[in-house]
Amino acid sequence: MRHFVEELETLKTSLLEMSALVEVAIQRSVIAVTQKDRSAAEEVFLNEAKINAKEIQIDDAAVSLLALQQPMAADLRLIVAVLKINTDLERMGDLAANTAQRAMSLMEVPVIKPMIDIPHIAGLVQSMVRKALDAFVQRDPVLARSVLASDDAVDSLRTASYHELVSFMEQDPQNIQQALDLLAVTRNLERIADHSTNIAEDVLFLVKGIDVRHHAETHS
Amino acid sequence: MRHFVEELETLKTSLLEMSALVEVAIQRSVIAVTQKDRSAAEEVFLNEAKINAKEIQIDDAAVSLLALQQPMAADLRLIVAVLKINTDLERMGDLAANTAQRAMSLMEVPVIKPMIDIPHIAGLVQSMVRKALDAFVQRDPVLARSVLASDDAVDSLRTASYHELVSFMEQDPQNIQQALDLLAVTRNLERIADHSTNIAEDVLFLVKGIDVRHHAETHS
Repeated sequence: MRHFVEELETLKTSLLEMSALVEVAIQRSVIAVTQKDRSAAEEVFLNEAKINAKEIQIDDAAVSLLALQQPMAADLRLIVAVLKINTDLERMGDLAANTAQRAMSLMEVPVIKPMIDIPHIAGLVQSMVRKALDAFVQRDPVLARSVLASDDAVDSLRTASYHELVSFMEQDPQNIQQALDLLAVTRNLERIADHSTNIAEDVLFLVKGIDVRHHAETHS
Repeated sequence: MRHFVEELETLKTSLLEMSALVEVAIQRSVIAVTQKDRSAAEEVFLNEAKINAKEIQIDDAAVSLLALQQPMAADLRLIVAVLKINTDLERMGDLAANTAQRAMSLMEVPVIKPMIDIPHIAGLVQSMVRKALDAFVQRDPVLARSVLASDDAVDSLRTASYHELVSFMEQDPQNIQQALDLLAVTRNLERIADHSTNIAEDVLFLVKGIDVRHHAETHS
């Protein structure tokens, strides 16, 4: 068996490969919606199988490290954080796939409503994802806390967009399906933001042993 | 420090207390919707703080057990399963709270549409939750597999209900808010069912070391 430190590095590298796949999936799903890009949506569907395989591989590697070694407190916290972040990343991949499905549905109808809000919300959410993962790599609690702070902005934007889409439905029943798809897209983005805050909380636990969960809970 | 076996029993007991809180939250949230029962909704909101506190307590206990002991393969799988099931239960509690919020919104308007489907879907989902947790307690792979099988039925029921609610919106714009609330309730129930299948998969991993994830993935 290889040295523990080396195994732990391999585990971290795998998690970063996982996060790269998920970031691409989110980015492509947003392009599929905003640019009605069918090939971007298909890329997300193909990516999903890779993400699922990677999740299992990382979980198995983390459990093996726990089983075969006797990790000390800090390493143990790292392995537990990897297990948790891995779960969040896989869910984010699922949400990107759902967004890509909604994008396919949106491609079937002419755009009635310009999607001003969605690129805006998507940009903010993608920057949260990036910061949460950077905070993990750099073990940076300040960056992790900035992710927690952004979550409220995403919630506010989504609430505004929700009301706008409901009034858009009320104007004309023909808009309903399109509005429901757009509502699902913004909900998916908001849930991706929630998973980013979970990751940021895991980083704070990892760096300082602080449990910051459930201090500013939101519901989607 | 107490004996490892004793600590492990305490951990399992805490998880069952957590699952009891979550099952009550789901049940009360369904009653809040179907019977327009405000006190049931309020009970769910109060319950949520307890569920969140319990999640942290269980996580900490599981990590301590990993840190202070050197668990063998089977015990290690149990502790990892507890960590994962704990996360799923907390999310189920969040979904119940969201359903209770939707119930409050639904109470403000007269019932236009009878909620024939919701008690039906809710009954099926609650039975999945129960079976998944029983499968964990009894380490019963047959029961765990029956949970996986039920998930397709919930998806089918929800799809039918989705189309019905969309046509209900299209009939009259005044129905839109109510239909959106009901859509959210059925989506929450479907996501609770998904978390039950996660738990059932963890039971199969625990009992047999089999990883059954991503064999019949669905998207909400």
